[in-house]
Amino acid sequence: MHKYEEKTLKVEEIFNGKILHLQVLDVELSDGKTSKREVIKHPGAVAVLAVTKENKVVMVEQYRKAAERALIEIPAGKLEPGEDPLEAAMRELEEETGYACGKLEPITAFYTSPGFADEWIRLYMATGLEKLEEPKAGDDDEFVDILEFSLDEVKGMLRSGKLCDAKTIIALQHWILLGENK
Amino acid sequence: MHKYEEKTLKVEEIFNGKILHLQVLDVELSDGKTSKREVIKHPGAVAVLAVTKENKVVMVEQYRKAAERALIEIPAGKLEPGEDPLEAAMRELEEETGYACGKLEPITAFYTSPGFADEWIRLYMATGLEKLEEPKAGDDDEFVDILEFSLDEVKGMLRSGKLCDAKTIIALQHWILLGENK
Repeated sequence: MHKYEEKTLKVEEIFNGKILHLQVLDVELSDGKTSKREVIKHPGAVAVLAVTKENKVVMVEQYRKAAERALIEIPAGKLEPGEDPLEAAMRELEEETGYACGKLEPITAFYTSPGFADEWIRLYMATGLEKLEEPKAGDDDEFVDILEFSLDEVKGMLRSGKLCDAKTIIALQHWILLGENK
Repeated sequence: MHKYEEKTLKVEEIFNGKILHLQVLDVELSDGKTSKREVIKHPGAVAVLAVTKENKVVMVEQYRKAAERALIEIPAGKLEPGEDPLEAAMRELEEETGYACGKLEPITAFYTSPGFADEWIRLYMATGLEKLEEPKAGDDDEFVDILEFSLDEVKGMLRSGKLCDAKTIIALQHWILLGENK
């Protein structure tokens, strides 16, 4: 047990939606006092740094209602219940970009916003990409454009702030660091 | 207007808490169909990559109830209503670590989880650190340990997965890239 662990005294279920599950917890702090924590339960997600044989990264541009703007991101998606993360990563890559990959390796995994959510993203690197003639379709309420960028283009887009999604920045910094260490 | 923009048809207010605000939106998609979006409204946050004169990064370890574990993160915190982000970054650095900084510069900014939340983190780099004798106290329900790590220690902790918070990985990969480009 961690010395600052917060013991749950009471769980109040606020909302159980299609994606998000919100609870308000009464907790006992390490000094014996009590406090409240607002917590989002999320199914977890996978994201893919997919690099083509021409050494370009495959990204998607889509409208994000929470942000009220379109964002350029690496392919990603929520885990289906019981789904193997590696299979989910291959599925999302195919559905969003139409690529299958010859090789898929874990890079790292992280909490996106541990102050209030348990969302855990597993990040993979996909290489040996092959464009599929008849890729599986994705969610019918998702519209995405597929874009490909070189390492130099990515460096410029990171510097300018055009890329502003956390998982995407993590993946692309990793790609740049791989290049620097060659 | 973006070609995939989703027009809000109806807003259902679900929860308005101390930190999180949850809405369910009915939206019109770009193909004319309708769908629902579960959206978390968050006040936004600041995070600080603070590097000491000995070239060590200052981090905090704290218990994160949403993750049900302790995490090592860079100093960070929510914006107070109307607060200037630069001042918020200085305040969080002082409250969480006891350091004041001589220089504070923006690095980048990003959405942590744009699929469901509008949380926007502004990331700064703090240098010229001076330990304060009587730093301001932080929130009375926050308990943190202050830790300092060298660049080599950070590289090892990123490789091993010991660092697994998105904003922290972004900040530290940025720090490594700064070093590589010297």
